Formats: sequence, C-alpha cells, structure tokens
Amino acid sequence: MTLYEIITKKKHNAELSTEEIEWVVAGFCRGDIPDYQMSALLMAICFNSLSDRETADLTMAMAYSGDMLKPETGGFNADKHSTGGVGDKTTLITAPIAAACGVFVPKMSGRGLGHTGGTIDKLEAIPGFRTDLPYEKFIAAVKKAGFAVASQTGSLVPADKKIYALRNATATVDSIPLICSSIMSKKLATGADGIVLDVKVGDGAFMKTTSEAEKLAEAMVRVGQLAGRKCSAVLTDMSKPLGKAVGNSIEIIEAIETLKGNTPKDSPLREISLTLAAEMLVTAGKGDSEQCFAMAEKALDSGAALERLRLMIELQGGDPRVIDDYSLFGKARFRREIFADRSGFLNGIACEQTGLTSLRLGAGRLTKESDIDPSAGIVFDKAVGERVCKGERLAALMTSTENGLDDIAEEFKGVFRIEEENRAQENFPKKNIIKIIKGY
Amino acid sequence: MTLYEIITKKKHNAELSTEEIEWVVAGFCRGDIPDYQMSALLMAICFNSLSDRETADLTMAMAYSGDMLKPETGGFNADKHSTGGVGDKTTLITAPIAAACGVFVPKMSGRGLGHTGGTIDKLEAIPGFRTDLPYEKFIAAVKKAGFAVASQTGSLVPADKKIYALRNATATVDSIPLICSSIMSKKLATGADGIVLDVKVGDGAFMKTTSEAEKLAEAMVRVGQLAGRKCSAVLTDMSKPLGKAVGNSIEIIEAIETLKGNTPKDSPLREISLTLAAEMLVTAGKGDSEQCFAMAEKALDSGAALERLRLMIELQGGDPRVIDDYSLFGKARFRREIFADRSGFLNGIACEQTGLTSLRLGAGRLTKESDIDPSAGIVFDKAVGERVCKGERLAALMTSTENGLDDIAEEFKGVFRIEEENRAQENFPKKNIIKIIKGY
Repeated sequence: MTLYEIITKKKHNAELSTEEIEWVVAGFCRGDIPDYQMSALLMAICFNSLSDRETADLTMAMAYSGDMLKPETGGFNADKHSTGGVGDKTTLITAPIAAACGVFVPKMSGRGLGHTGGTIDKLEAIPGFRTDLPYEKFIAAVKKAGFAVASQTGSLVPADKKIYALRNATATVDSIPLICSSIMSKKLATGADGIVLDVKVGDGAFMKTTSEAEKLAEAMVRVGQLAGRKCSAVLTDMSKPLGKAVGNSIEIIEAIETLKGNTPKDSPLREISLTLAAEMLVTAGKGDSEQCFAMAEKALDSGAALERLRLMIELQGGDPRVIDDYSLFGKARFRREIFADRSGFLNGIACEQTGLTSLRLGAGRLTKESDIDPSAGIVFDKAVGERVCKGERLAALMTSTENGLDDIAEEFKGVFRIEEENRAQENFPKKNIIKIIKGY
Repeated sequence: MTLYEIITKKKHNAELSTEEIEWVVAGFCRGDIPDYQMSALLMAICFNSLSDRETADLTMAMAYSGDMLKPETGGFNADKHSTGGVGDKTTLITAPIAAACGVFVPKMSGRGLGHTGGTIDKLEAIPGFRTDLPYEKFIAAVKKAGFAVASQTGSLVPADKKIYALRNATATVDSIPLICSSIMSKKLATGADGIVLDVKVGDGAFMKTTSEAEKLAEAMVRVGQLAGRKCSAVLTDMSKPLGKAVGNSIEIIEAIETLKGNTPKDSPLREISLTLAAEMLVTAGKGDSEQCFAMAEKALDSGAALERLRLMIELQGGDPRVIDDYSLFGKARFRREIFADRSGFLNGIACEQTGLTSLRLGAGRLTKESDIDPSAGIVFDKAVGERVCKGERLAALMTSTENGLDDIAEEFKGVFRIEEENRAQENFPKKNIIKIIKGY
C-alpha cells in the first residue's frame, strides 16, 4: 500500500477500502505520510467526495487516533454541536435545559477561530470561571449540575487537529465528508450517547444553502448511527444574526436573559434553543419531539434551567452572582452607537458582515495566538422585520481599542437594510427551524 | 496575494491571472510556498485544468525560472522532443538528417526515468563519448556537425525539476497543461527557433488514446506559437515497440543501420524519423511538409546524414569506428532467446510489457540513482504483421545479470500474440503517422 496509489484511486473516483483509510490516518498521525501527499489526497476528496462508508471509516479512524472517553455520569450523556454562526449562544441555553430535564451534558469544546470566541471563551468572561478542570472534577460537576463545559484536551482526536491544520492551509475545508469526519470524530471520541447537530444555513453560516446543509446533516447523522449513537440534526436559520448580542460576555448575558424568560416566545434564539434541547431529550428516549419541546419549555419557564446554569458556574469556580448582577462582567472602554439614517422597515442585517465587524472589534480570534476581548462585541436594538424611525438607535459597538473604531462604525452602518415596505419575509425563510433530520 | 486564495480560485474553476501564476512559480522556486500547498494547487489543476492562456503563462514562468539560452550557431536552431515510447531512437536518426539539410540541432537532454535510458544514456554506450561538454564547446560542435547532444545543466528550468518531483510524489502527473508546461518550458529555455514534438499514442505511450494525445499536442503547439517559436506536433503510433531494438547500445546500432539505408522503406522507424526530420525543416522555412520529406529522404539515402553522425561522435570524444564496427560496443554477458511455440501471424507485441522487461533487464533506470546497463535490452526478430513458424526465434533478451533472467524470459513470452489469421491491421492503426498539428 502506498499513498501514491491511494491518491490515484481517489483521483479516479474509486472507493477506498477501510484498511486504506485506516492506513492513511495512522500514517499521517505518525508522520510517515508527508503533508504534501496528504494535501493532494484531501484535494482529490474535495473533488470526488467520499461515499457514506468511506466517510464513516474516516470518522472512526480519526476518532480512534486518540483517547476514546466514556463519561461515567451514571446516566444518558447527550452532546450538541453547532456548525457555527453569528451570535450563536445556544449551548449556554440548551445545555442547562437538557440538564434540568435529567439528561447529562458533559460538554467539551475547542477554542476555534471565528467571529466571536467559542463557548469556552464566552464562559471565561465570567470572573473566576475555569474551563481546564481535570477530567474527574469535570465529570463530578456534570453529575451535580447535569452539565459542565471543559476545554478539549490534546489527547482527543489528534488526527483531526493535524488534518484540519492542513485543510486550513490548502483550501480543502469545504468538503462535506471532510467536515463531517472532523465534527463527528470529536463527538464520537467524547463519548456522547446522543448527539444533536445544529447545522446553520444562510449568509452568516458555512453552509449558504439548504441543500448543502442538508447533505452535511444527513452525512453526520448517518455516521453517528453507524457508530451506534442516537443522532439528530436541526437545520436552523443563519440568514441574520441569532439574537441581539454578538460577542462574549454580552452573549452570556443574553443567554441568562433567555433562561430568565425575558425573551419573546417567538424569538429565533428561544425557539432554536428549545428545539435543540428537545432533540437532546429525544435522543435520550424522553419522548417524541413535541413532548420533549414541551418539557424543555417547562424547564426554561420554571427557572429550573437557570438554576442549573448558576450551579454549573459555581462548580467551575465562576462567580454565580453574575446571573443577577451583569455589572460583574467587565465593561468595554469604548463604544459607538449606530443610528437609523431613515425611517422604514429593517428588512435585513448582513450576517457575515456583522461577524467580521465583531472580529475586528476584538471579540474573536484571527489567529490561534490572538487574545479574545471578552467585553467587545455588538448589541442590536432592532431585529429584522421591525419598524425603525430615523434617528433611532440600531446597535452599539463595544471594544477595548479606540484605534480604527470610527472607521469600523462607519462601515457597520452598511449592514442594515432599511426600506419603505416590510419585505423581511421575502428575504428570509419564514421558519427558524428549517428541517430536522432524525437518526434516533 | 496568498496561495490559499489562488488554490481556492482554481478549485472553483476560475482563471488565474498572469501575475498570480508568476507569483506561484517564483514563490515555489524560492521555497516560500510549501510543498503541501503547491500539491493541493496541482491536484486542483488536474481536476479543473488550465486555459490556453494560463498554460502559456505557466510555461513561460517556468522557462524563465532559470537560464534562457540563445545558441549562437549563426543559423536556424531546431529541436525535437518525444513524449516517450518503447524503442524510440528517432533523435539519433532525425537530428543528423536535419543537420545534413542545413538546420542546426543543439540538443539538450535530461536523464529521465524510463524503460530505456534517454538519448544521453544511449550515446554514452559509445566508447569515449562525452555528454558533459561545456556550453561553448557544445555550440562549436553544433556549428561543425550541424548537431550535438549535451546533458541538460542544473541551471535550466529549475522550476520544472521542483514541480515535477512533487507531481511525481502526489499522483498529479497526468494533467495536459502540466505535462505541456513541463515539456515546453524546457524547449523554450534551450532557445530553439523551431520545435517539433513527437507525441506518441498507444499502449506503450503515456497518452493511450488519440484524442488525449491530440489535446496535448495542440496545447504544446499553441504555447510554442505564443512564445514566438515555429512549432509542429506529430502524433505517432506507439501501439507496438518502435523498430526492432529496445535498449541502449542496440538502439544506437539500429539508428546507424537506418542511416545506412538498411531499414525497409515502409518501416515505422524510418517513416516516423523522416517525418520528424521533415517537420524540423518546415519550421526552418525549407519548404512544405512534402518537399521537406523528400529532402530528408535524400539526406538519408545519400549517406549525408550518416556522415553527420560520424562527425558528431568524433567531436564529442566518441570512437567513430563504431559506425562500421558494432563489436566496439560492449556485449551483454547473458542472453536468452525466445522461440515461437506455434505457427501463425504475429498480431501484436505488448508494448508497455516490453518496456517493463527492458527495465528489468537493466536497460533503464528505476530510480535516479540507478546505473544503466548499456548492453542490456531486447532485439526482436519479427515485427507485427509478419508470419512466424513454430520454433522460429522471435526475440533475444540481453543483460549483465543472470539472476532472475529465466523468470523474465518466461514472462516475456506473453508479449507475443500469435494467431491463425492475420489481424494486425484490426488491432493497430494503419498509419505510423496519425496526424500532424502544424503551428509554423
């Protein structure tokens, strides 16, 4: 077996055997296969894709490249993953709800690059909060609070780290089987019994169209099933930022507000969070989607979920008083406010542009070495579909560095589309939840 | 400009600009662009190809990565390149013919890998022959004999060396624009005014089908024209070995025999060599294809071309007596003869298999470090289409190592297809010259 032959096979669109795929992953991890051969294979996969069987084999081979965890919580362990969007703080709402309904959520997260920090970075905006708990303490916290969030250790899925770094340098990221194997290998390695995938669709997401998102969702659900896990993928709208806050500490605050019931019943953030939580309950066998949605709603409205969050913050060394006193979060030194320059309907908020602005304000990481500014970000006053009057405030930008801020604010005005007629419904899907692909 | 963006463009089938292509080639040669990014780009090119303009830009950028020679012979300089086949000794016949007709052929060759050695290796089978002449001496020899053959120096087209090594390790060899740029960059850098390309088609060639060969030929001719050179590509048959000898010294002998007029008028080797020589004359403006073919034939039949070869051997330090005394070539220590096991018509000689046998006998190089055995090879007694009787000798194998020779001989019997009816015409194109693509 040589990598040359394997590249040639994939280039000619032939199916690779399980042994070949395992040999590639193991050889690449050991350093026997050079990067330049691996990148050629990855590019051939981008063009000719992988079959379901090959994708499952790749995912399993990657998962088994490092530790395979078995979180001993004594109950059903569910996990939730988002493909990433702008203003996505659903984990902070979904996990406490699921926990309040009796499902364990031992959540391990990586520190990615993006418009804002990951869940780990957001939680670190809470004074004292620690994400580097030893595994035993992490599991103990999960058993007590029902959920906990720890940063992913280096011994989990080393194959993904190595392959992803290469994909990121060689423009081979946008391949459905490669995305699927990257996400699912981590989910399988962390040992979840139930896996709920939030596949974002739209301008602010990696998947711009429903059909692409559907393919990825189906691939991930199939791989999860083949690995013996209960799976569900929810396609959710990312054609506008999710919720009103895009940043780190301000997203924590919005999550707390949602758990306090201060978000309108029909808000996308609330509906999407409840749906994802419900699906986690379904994978755990708590009922069907409708029954579980009702359970999730009850856990939110009763305040039970909020109490789980409070307990979890305490167990992870954070100051639980932040739940009632937002001033405990550091405040950004500089602000700029954006006002409407005309009256009309807010028919759109450019989603990707919002994310990039958030990054420029310091809320996200441009390189792995960058520091996150926990207080930086954007808070919207108006949501898509609302009527605005000239001079009304549309949003506030917050950051720790004044340098270049006026330019950022000036450019940011362009994200708002204010028109005479209400056409938000034409531009956006009517539903927050586009589709659910079930693999229980 | 980043290579990431360039890979992404090519992956999405967009056209790269001249600046982008120049930047890639220069950056890769300097070592600024890592192999793993370059191999991803090369694989994307294998899938999405390059436009004519991009191919020409790539070829020029590669040519200009090293020295651009201007052979000062005082006349028209023509060059000839073959895409490689089994038993291809046409350079040794074509170049002296063209020289005898007043065209200069300053031929620089590389030492490639293959079934037999390259022209350089073949010539080195002549006692005393030197291919490492300093450039001035090489040009002086060209001026005197009309042609000379030197090994290519390291300062010619370094980009091709680097890119080819990577293609060879990453299964990205079989791309028409990449093959075209590799061949043509070298031809442009050696400074030929006229370039004749022998594009082999068939089982023993890199291009198995006429349509593929045609695409490559057209691409090369277009690039040559864009670079201001006179070009011609001749598609020639490689569905059976060319001539009767496959090896190094034995191919020199066959070339000499051909120049002595001892080859039948209708033999493929003679017809193909004359056609290629004629095209070299056409690029030099000596007449049309028909007129030049007649001139070439006269130069061969008059013995003028043979005298050019004799002079050239002498000028390059070789013993010119080899032309009359073949025993001056070393003899192989071991021989095996292959006899027909039935009577009938020889309807085919498996071409690629013949080449591989020649390699196993020691006539070619498996790795760049291998030594060529100049006396090793295969001599056929029978040609495709001939009648054979049971027990008649079909071929002799020659080598310096007896180890494994019986197995090689036993397997080699399989290359001969002897059938009751004469069906050679069904299996092979009727023509030795399939097509000429002209770009004068």
